[in-house]
Amino acid sequence: MRLSRAAVLVSKERMNTEEMLSQQIFFQSSLLKRYGAGIYGKHNFLVRAQANIEKIIREVLDKYDCVEITLPLLQPQSLWLESGRWDAYYSSGQMFYCNMPNGMFCMTPTAEEAVFEFVRENIKSYKDLPVNVYQIGPKFRNEIRVRGGLLRSKEFTMMDAYSFHASEEDLKREYANMRKAYLEIFEKLGLEAIPVKALNGDMGGKISEEFMFLSEAGEDTILVSKDKTIAFNKEILELENAEEYLKNNYGITDIKTLEEKHCIELGHIFQLGQKYSTTMKGTFKSADNIEIPYYMGCYGIGVSRTLAAICEQNCDEEGLIWNKEIAPYLVNIIYTPNKKENAEKLYDNLKKSGIKVVIDDRENLRLGAKIKDWKIFGIPYLIVIGDKTEEDTIEIENRKDGKKQLIKESELVNFLK
Amino acid sequence: MRLSRAAVLVSKERMNTEEMLSQQIFFQSSLLKRYGAGIYGKHNFLVRAQANIEKIIREVLDKYDCVEITLPLLQPQSLWLESGRWDAYYSSGQMFYCNMPNGMFCMTPTAEEAVFEFVRENIKSYKDLPVNVYQIGPKFRNEIRVRGGLLRSKEFTMMDAYSFHASEEDLKREYANMRKAYLEIFEKLGLEAIPVKALNGDMGGKISEEFMFLSEAGEDTILVSKDKTIAFNKEILELENAEEYLKNNYGITDIKTLEEKHCIELGHIFQLGQKYSTTMKGTFKSADNIEIPYYMGCYGIGVSRTLAAICEQNCDEEGLIWNKEIAPYLVNIIYTPNKKENAEKLYDNLKKSGIKVVIDDRENLRLGAKIKDWKIFGIPYLIVIGDKTEEDTIEIENRKDGKKQLIKESELVNFLK
Repeated sequence: MRLSRAAVLVSKERMNTEEMLSQQIFFQSSLLKRYGAGIYGKHNFLVRAQANIEKIIREVLDKYDCVEITLPLLQPQSLWLESGRWDAYYSSGQMFYCNMPNGMFCMTPTAEEAVFEFVRENIKSYKDLPVNVYQIGPKFRNEIRVRGGLLRSKEFTMMDAYSFHASEEDLKREYANMRKAYLEIFEKLGLEAIPVKALNGDMGGKISEEFMFLSEAGEDTILVSKDKTIAFNKEILELENAEEYLKNNYGITDIKTLEEKHCIELGHIFQLGQKYSTTMKGTFKSADNIEIPYYMGCYGIGVSRTLAAICEQNCDEEGLIWNKEIAPYLVNIIYTPNKKENAEKLYDNLKKSGIKVVIDDRENLRLGAKIKDWKIFGIPYLIVIGDKTEEDTIEIENRKDGKKQLIKESELVNFLK
Repeated sequence: MRLSRAAVLVSKERMNTEEMLSQQIFFQSSLLKRYGAGIYGKHNFLVRAQANIEKIIREVLDKYDCVEITLPLLQPQSLWLESGRWDAYYSSGQMFYCNMPNGMFCMTPTAEEAVFEFVRENIKSYKDLPVNVYQIGPKFRNEIRVRGGLLRSKEFTMMDAYSFHASEEDLKREYANMRKAYLEIFEKLGLEAIPVKALNGDMGGKISEEFMFLSEAGEDTILVSKDKTIAFNKEILELENAEEYLKNNYGITDIKTLEEKHCIELGHIFQLGQKYSTTMKGTFKSADNIEIPYYMGCYGIGVSRTLAAICEQNCDEEGLIWNKEIAPYLVNIIYTPNKKENAEKLYDNLKKSGIKVVIDDRENLRLGAKIKDWKIFGIPYLIVIGDKTEEDTIEIENRKDGKKQLIKESELVNFLK
């Protein structure tokens, strides 16, 4: 990618209007563009990093036999009247709706209704179960208290999966599988996400777990054991019979040893049971030819929020520090004016070798400013083609540890791969 | 992908409510799910095929130094009041808007306003130009006359690129480049798309070309020479001084030899000039330190419509016929009941080798029905693991030409790659 063609601009000042350092960096470097409260455009680096996150999520979910689909973002009101959720969502003010002369629509805040409509006619018998379908795409919620750029915005990217089962046992089996899949996803993303017992709340059903990223800036509070194997959302303590609830549903007995921590919710998995299938008339014929509402699970990951957590975990005062798996590009090339030709040649060669590479070919910036910008953008490696650069040796700097290394040009591609 | 987990269902009947055969196949095979007029969900095969199309578009645009960004789908009214386009869009009834207690928003029908807001503060001098940014994502238009599933719907996927320049010459250079990029994209997609001179219409500016896919079901009409090098949209003839316009703007003199053809518009590229930058105050400082509104180009491809055109070009009475570049999966495995284990083993091996593979493990379908479904879904190759299948030899059938081939299992991966 040519930075000269991207209209990026790093301002000298970092505003402290955001709590989290990574979010301050986003706005300073024009990686996030604010259009209004909770509405943002994303610049190339964030778009490509998010695409890498989505790729990892897809790979793991596909491995766990989930099937990707796309549900509509614009949804007719009739669908929501059927589930009985229109009024509640509408009056909460959280749902964006379009009252058009030819009908009332909403912009999907969640997609249980839509997924039922999608699978309902196709699932007829117990032989058609289990099913697990997911999508990755935008969701819309009219958040009044928006927060920190990608943390809680009106438009955000979510992965939402929905599973359907012929029995509660099979739902539990899938739920355990999805829990494993989630741990695998967060591990591949290089994020420590702790599974935490949680309340199902408005979603219905009894069993659910959140995947929490520990952060002082987080709005959620959990109680967690030292080894992080026992953890639950503090909201459970607000229940009338909290201790009993924890014991009966999760086998948690001694909560006195647990520590309080702030955190950010990255994902949530639910055993919903038959609540939605009863209302939405999603039934299958059992082996005995009886119509039964199927058992349902649902599973969400806040994709743009996960991007935010990754950036917050990997940044310092000088800027972002992408790990290689998520990095939008692997290497950034800068050069002194009379080495432009050499730099361009290297850029072309790296691109041809399949290396994701940026060339900072902006005419109006000096080398020092470009090095500063490289640190802000957080690309893993920097190559400076300077006046002193020898013909076949390249100096490469690592953003993470600041170490510089001399590498033969012929070995560069192998080193980067 | 396991078909048993996907809730797909092919019905025996094909409704003739759609004009185009491919669209009839979509609804028959539950690849498209209708939610209301012009609102659809997409099943896995279409999602993955569209992702392959998007990948090709990205690769070519990146090669032509375009930079991917993401603009918000939900846009505050203030942005549109600034450009002066709110009233026209609002009163046309084509724009989905959300009149919320905390503000008025629209769902992006197009994104010229948003892209200005994105780049405006970052482009200061002629040294910051040219810039070319694009996005791939949903657009929303309240089409009253919706058509054929993916052809004209209320929610659709679009690639929209926007370029900014210090001079008209530079805009013309980029426009020519983008024209080349478009031809490359459509060639890679295996689609014949003819560039056709067109009117700029509401978009403003003078020069524009559409990329047309010839189809009897198309709503557009063009006049085109036998060798397809001269072509224009028939709408130009409605101009008062049409012949003069064609001659002055495009050098077309003799239109009598041209033939009338129906077609579907897949893309449109525009030289917009300074219209939007003047209204939206998008200016740069020239070398002489004068503030000048930049010259702008914009470039669109209807991604979901392109998917529709590809399917229409590649289908027969039995179903879809994906080409390998676009195919959601390369091979489909079916098996007789007592060969399940062998089939599963092959499925795992192919997946491990990076081959995109489907196993039709649905329990309630016979082999004959599965072969029919394979033809409907149009996966390039079918492998049947039957009772007569010899240990190390596999019969593979080609969807396109129906030819069957025997291949040693050890050579299968190489054959497929």
